[in-house]
Amino acid sequence: MSNRLRIGMVGYKFMGKAHSNAYRSLPMFFPNAPLQPEMSVICGRNEQGVQAAARQFGWTESVTNWRDLVKRNDIDLIDINAPSDAHKEIVVEAALHGKHLFCEKPLALSLADSRDMLQAVEEAGVRHMIGFNYRFSPAVQLAKQLVKSGRLGKIYHFRAFFLQDWVMDPSFPLVWRLQKEVAGSGSHGDLGAHLIDLARFLVGEFHEVIGMSETFIKQRPLALEMSGLSSKGSAEANAPMGEVTVDDATLFLARFAGGALGSFEATRFAAGHRSTNSFEINGSLGSVRFDFERMNELEVYFTQDEEDVQGFRRVLATDPAHKYSEAWWPAGHTIGFEHTFTHEMLEMLSAISEGRQPVPNFHDGVACQAVLEAVERSVEERRWVSIEEM
Amino acid sequence: MSNRLRIGMVGYKFMGKAHSNAYRSLPMFFPNAPLQPEMSVICGRNEQGVQAAARQFGWTESVTNWRDLVKRNDIDLIDINAPSDAHKEIVVEAALHGKHLFCEKPLALSLADSRDMLQAVEEAGVRHMIGFNYRFSPAVQLAKQLVKSGRLGKIYHFRAFFLQDWVMDPSFPLVWRLQKEVAGSGSHGDLGAHLIDLARFLVGEFHEVIGMSETFIKQRPLALEMSGLSSKGSAEANAPMGEVTVDDATLFLARFAGGALGSFEATRFAAGHRSTNSFEINGSLGSVRFDFERMNELEVYFTQDEEDVQGFRRVLATDPAHKYSEAWWPAGHTIGFEHTFTHEMLEMLSAISEGRQPVPNFHDGVACQAVLEAVERSVEERRWVSIEEM
Amino acid sequence: MSNRLRIGMVGYKFMGKAHSNAYRSLPMFFPNAPLQPEMSVICGRNEQGVQAAARQFGWTESVTNWRDLVKRNDIDLIDINAPSDAHKEIVVEAALHGKHLFCEKPLALSLADSRDMLQAVEEAGVRHMIGFNYRFSPAVQLAKQLVKSGRLGKIYHFRAFFLQDWVMDPSFPLVWRLQKEVAGSGSHGDLGAHLIDLARFLVGEFHEVIGMSETFIKQRPLALEMSGLSSKGSAEANAPMGEVTVDDATLFLARFAGGALGSFEATRFAAGHRSTNSFEINGSLGSVRFDFERMNELEVYFTQDEEDVQGFRRVLATDPAHKYSEAWWPAGHTIGFEHTFTHEMLEMLSAISEGRQPVPNFHDGVACQAVLEAVERSVEERRWVSIEEM
Amino acid sequence: MSNRLRIGMVGYKFMGKAHSNAYRSLPMFFPNAPLQPEMSVICGRNEQGVQAAARQFGWTESVTNWRDLVKRNDIDLIDINAPSDAHKEIVVEAALHGKHLFCEKPLALSLADSRDMLQAVEEAGVRHMIGFNYRFSPAVQLAKQLVKSGRLGKIYHFRAFFLQDWVMDPSFPLVWRLQKEVAGSGSHGDLGAHLIDLARFLVGEFHEVIGMSETFIKQRPLALEMSGLSSKGSAEANAPMGEVTVDDATLFLARFAGGALGSFEATRFAAGHRSTNSFEINGSLGSVRFDFERMNELEVYFTQDEEDVQGFRRVLATDPAHKYSEAWWPAGHTIGFEHTFTHEMLEMLSAISEGRQPVPNFHDGVACQAVLEAVERSVEERRWVSIEEM
Repeated sequence: MSNRLRIGMVGYKFMGKAHSNAYRSLPMFFPNAPLQPEMSVICGRNEQGVQAAARQFGWTESVTNWRDLVKRNDIDLIDINAPSDAHKEIVVEAALHGKHLFCEKPLALSLADSRDMLQAVEEAGVRHMIGFNYRFSPAVQLAKQLVKSGRLGKIYHFRAFFLQDWVMDPSFPLVWRLQKEVAGSGSHGDLGAHLIDLARFLVGEFHEVIGMSETFIKQRPLALEMSGLSSKGSAEANAPMGEVTVDDATLFLARFAGGALGSFEATRFAAGHRSTNSFEINGSLGSVRFDFERMNELEVYFTQDEEDVQGFRRVLATDPAHKYSEAWWPAGHTIGFEHTFTHEMLEMLSAISEGRQPVPNFHDGVACQAVLEAVERSVEERRWVSIEEM
Repeated sequence: MSNRLRIGMVGYKFMGKAHSNAYRSLPMFFPNAPLQPEMSVICGRNEQGVQAAARQFGWTESVTNWRDLVKRNDIDLIDINAPSDAHKEIVVEAALHGKHLFCEKPLALSLADSRDMLQAVEEAGVRHMIGFNYRFSPAVQLAKQLVKSGRLGKIYHFRAFFLQDWVMDPSFPLVWRLQKEVAGSGSHGDLGAHLIDLARFLVGEFHEVIGMSETFIKQRPLALEMSGLSSKGSAEANAPMGEVTVDDATLFLARFAGGALGSFEATRFAAGHRSTNSFEINGSLGSVRFDFERMNELEVYFTQDEEDVQGFRRVLATDPAHKYSEAWWPAGHTIGFEHTFTHEMLEMLSAISEGRQPVPNFHDGVACQAVLEAVERSVEERRWVSIEEM
Repeated sequence: MSNRLRIGMVGYKFMGKAHSNAYRSLPMFFPNAPLQPEMSVICGRNEQGVQAAARQFGWTESVTNWRDLVKRNDIDLIDINAPSDAHKEIVVEAALHGKHLFCEKPLALSLADSRDMLQAVEEAGVRHMIGFNYRFSPAVQLAKQLVKSGRLGKIYHFRAFFLQDWVMDPSFPLVWRLQKEVAGSGSHGDLGAHLIDLARFLVGEFHEVIGMSETFIKQRPLALEMSGLSSKGSAEANAPMGEVTVDDATLFLARFAGGALGSFEATRFAAGHRSTNSFEINGSLGSVRFDFERMNELEVYFTQDEEDVQGFRRVLATDPAHKYSEAWWPAGHTIGFEHTFTHEMLEMLSAISEGRQPVPNFHDGVACQAVLEAVERSVEERRWVSIEEM
Repeated sequence: MSNRLRIGMVGYKFMGKAHSNAYRSLPMFFPNAPLQPEMSVICGRNEQGVQAAARQFGWTESVTNWRDLVKRNDIDLIDINAPSDAHKEIVVEAALHGKHLFCEKPLALSLADSRDMLQAVEEAGVRHMIGFNYRFSPAVQLAKQLVKSGRLGKIYHFRAFFLQDWVMDPSFPLVWRLQKEVAGSGSHGDLGAHLIDLARFLVGEFHEVIGMSETFIKQRPLALEMSGLSSKGSAEANAPMGEVTVDDATLFLARFAGGALGSFEATRFAAGHRSTNSFEINGSLGSVRFDFERMNELEVYFTQDEEDVQGFRRVLATDPAHKYSEAWWPAGHTIGFEHTFTHEMLEMLSAISEGRQPVPNFHDGVACQAVLEAVERSVEERRWVSIEEM
């Protein structure tokens, strides 16, 4: 294998931009990575759109048919960030042609589909990764180290919120993320999925869940064009209305296999929260707190600190002691949202080079989907649902 | 009626001290209150203890038998802050003798008991109040004003936590607050009750709930003496062990009658949180956030603020525009925990003087108890429980 | 000596209320203090006003002539919180009659006067204290402990601000605090004096200073009545105008005798700051930060913390390990502005009982005045002024 | 002119990396910029080092002699981020050959030199820009808009700190930034220069200044290699010692031409502050606060807000209403340190394309240098120094 991994990417909107930027950053900030990405082909349905994206993001070639793309011999990995309803078909087909796979979350629209996808990549014997990028914030990595090394002791509580407010305006149009047949679910799959993955990463497997869900605004004007998300939507006046078929908010309680209690909330109706992806862990020896709006910071508390100076420390995870930090800037110089993707792609490339599966991979995608669906079932059937049952 | 209300108080520990201080502060800070308290009699089981308390807190007289106290003609109101298991008997007896009543929360150990108590005071035609003191923080009052006046719009979310860490050490002894037969419940009744009351105060009635509960440390050394709570407990080495019969943590989800979604967590196992009593409300026009550890502050967000300067405002509720503030100090000079009790007692005295029931009263105590018990039932039966069912 | 100290207090406005509250709180919260205050006589020029204050605050008697008061045999200590221009005369006269003295800051309108006052109390052999109440916040006491015990190492920096905004409105009237002949100075003596005292308390003596001063609003409507400060002033429309003769803001740089560098700012023109009394200390082993608007908190940083978890800790100074805290409420239950006065009076009573001078006393008042005047001279003469020169 | 500007960059360490990244990001995030950078040639003294940098950062060619570079016809602009003592010679020579210039701050080691440089670029008629990158944080741009549009009213106060702690360890070696002959000054020129520029950008010209300076650690071990800054330095044990010839901390007071008062502090001895570049502006109608460690946030206060909800708003400058934000990610998704350079280079390219001088340019460099030197003179001569005098 050369030290270049030739990538074919399907999708070119928000996530396509984020992934492209990650591929562009890698050689500069991680020049010693054992494998570097080659930005070979970008694929999208709209020819003009994908050509413009290719130019803007720096891809060598653009195509409009992913079925052709996944067959090409000059492509090693397919990166999928198309809308969620397209994930499965592309994964299965690409795996058949022996391509490694990176798939944005959620892996699929259903647990059954995600299991099929896992089976496909396993049968094909390819590498696979799923895009839970928040794991790759240096502050979240620090949280992981503190838990893993036992410095927080036995974990009692995990509470997490992903709060946004971009669809609160009732005149915000019915974009694809508000349609079940394309998006699978609303706040739950979009935001809650990230929380579930962080919980699994930091605290371990779920045992059982019970949730509730709501769609506060049930009808919205049809959008003329499906342009992804933006913080302030708009639609034509007097536009015809359509039904919102996903949840605006989903909350659930959980018990973890290890005995911890979990509380989760994902909502798009929390005024003032542009993107508060936040969690707190309480253990017998300490606690940590994270809020993505201040993603360079982790608040850390230790019960063993001297009695008169106990308190949450605001740790800026930009010191040499913090993972990834030396690749960037001196201590105190913060990084942004997009850097999580650079670290994510570094893991993918490192794993492929080292002959192991990247983490998180489709197993994590399936596990996350199992929790998502357990919550959905618990909402429908108004009862506790164990993950095992799924 | 003279402008003095003669008070007989049962209990003299943590809450007894807080109430005494409130009675002492009233004439100084609210000299124009239509009715002022007379600190007549303090009652406790331990003669030496209650005598010392009388001296220290400024009560005219101390007694050890509450049954005698509630019969005295020179007492107008009985203030009960004895352990929770004693509330009912005292209330019923005092009401029979025509005394007004102030009772600390939780009203009783069971919903049935609390209903009996409400019936008793209603049949007696006396005034009654319950001690949900957090309502009386100026910042909470501001939150109430914002909700009530519609400035937050339609309420979508209420999420609340009461996080403490004072019993985390497994060697912390088995004090009365850890024994079900005295305390009724643990974190749920002690901390969760406050959250439930704040939710009812701010968002309205509950519709249905589902919860989960845990006792992390199931056995603890027996305490030599029952000395209430303290942040760092200790017991004799090799002390005999006893079973903890209350919950260390209780979480629940809720739907409100008005359509809002609620998330609640009460725990004594959140390392680093000495007493984080915190809530956030998200409405269609704005949000507010409160944390009791910074009780003078309310964070406030409005969706209608100009586009380039939208953000949570840190409002210090010490301005003349804020309720109660002019009684205290100039703007920017904060008040503390104990002041909530002064405001609470002001409401009680004002209401009695004006011939109306104080708010919150035993109706609120019963309503809170109904939610508490609905949650407990939901925990036991692992299903959603509607408040109506109670 | 009995265990009661009979107090005669001169002044009954903002500070009179704060002191009265402190005297009322002491027996309740510090019942074991070796000496308790007797609220004997309150004195003010306006007979109706002082009578009302006596009733409201709980003084046994009210009088209007302080000259008579200081001669009385049934008074042990004179507490002065009248406007600053009256301090000297009262102190000198009271000392002559052998009274102990508590005097609000600033001690006098000039360094010369303050030295005369110190001489008077020293010649009389009485106890004396000055009202730098901020020293008595538990969080400030913690800062002191950390510095004193060497846990912050060698001190390099002290920077402090006292920011207010109550006179920003140009229509706010010309109250006494804006008139040099009564108040001595403006922001400098009112706010800066507290910063200087905190610096001396925490870092040690000043070596030299240089400052600048400004009066932003030079004319204001005359006030009909001198009603002290309030956050939102007002005067009659078309009221005649008078000249503001004090500084609205004074800033200065300082070198401390121990080698640290200091930066100070006192202003009444910092919009949004109701009363931000804030300092930060940087030493070779750590740093601390304090902001009076969050007076229960001290932020603490140690350079020796483990490499991956270095950060400012938010310490809530309500734990048993924190001075004064056990007298109040359980950990996590905060106290307010007024409590600093209770602790201050406790020091005064303890010192008198133990036969020593309270701290801070008139020596500290003189030392503070020396720095205040050195700054003023440096402003006038546009040069560095050493404290020794004063 | 084609739509490519061919760049020759001198320097390849910290700032070289930051500039390279900016050039790489521009076509992707600002595809509609009228002019895009061509990363033509990178230049450095160490041949191996600069070759590696060329590969890592994506430059077409690397060279070791800047004198040859500035003569080449295939280069349009010279970007200088070599150590400060090399700036002048390169600028003068490059201007002679008609190259546009970007120069990192500080422009030169002396005011005289910086004036020569300005004269050189003006005589050559080329475009010139100086690297005050902090102006280009979206939050700082918002502050500028609020000041400029009058929404903060008349400005009374500007206070600013740049606090770091990377050289506090006495064993940290004597790197070039601690040597006057290379760096010009220490904290003053490195950190203070940024504060001065922000002050000029936001509040306007300085009128007069007075400062003080200190070198806390006067001798340090000689470094084996000059490796720029890092948060934790180290040197060989028993390394020979050398004298630190720059300031560890410089503070100064200022009066602005417009009447505002300024307070400035730059230090490398503030334990716990990795890189706190922070300012606050107080005006008659409002205030703003910025801290670079939370660079996406601006705190904003308005005196005209409704009376009961006045408070500093935490504005996350990632909304569409905020400058540059739409180029990046959805609202709530923050950016990092390096993005300020992308915006900076966008201004440079836009200005060149539009036929105007970029802002800030060498005039700003000279003006900043004048303030820096006025402060230095005020320190030496212990007196106020007016900027005019310089």
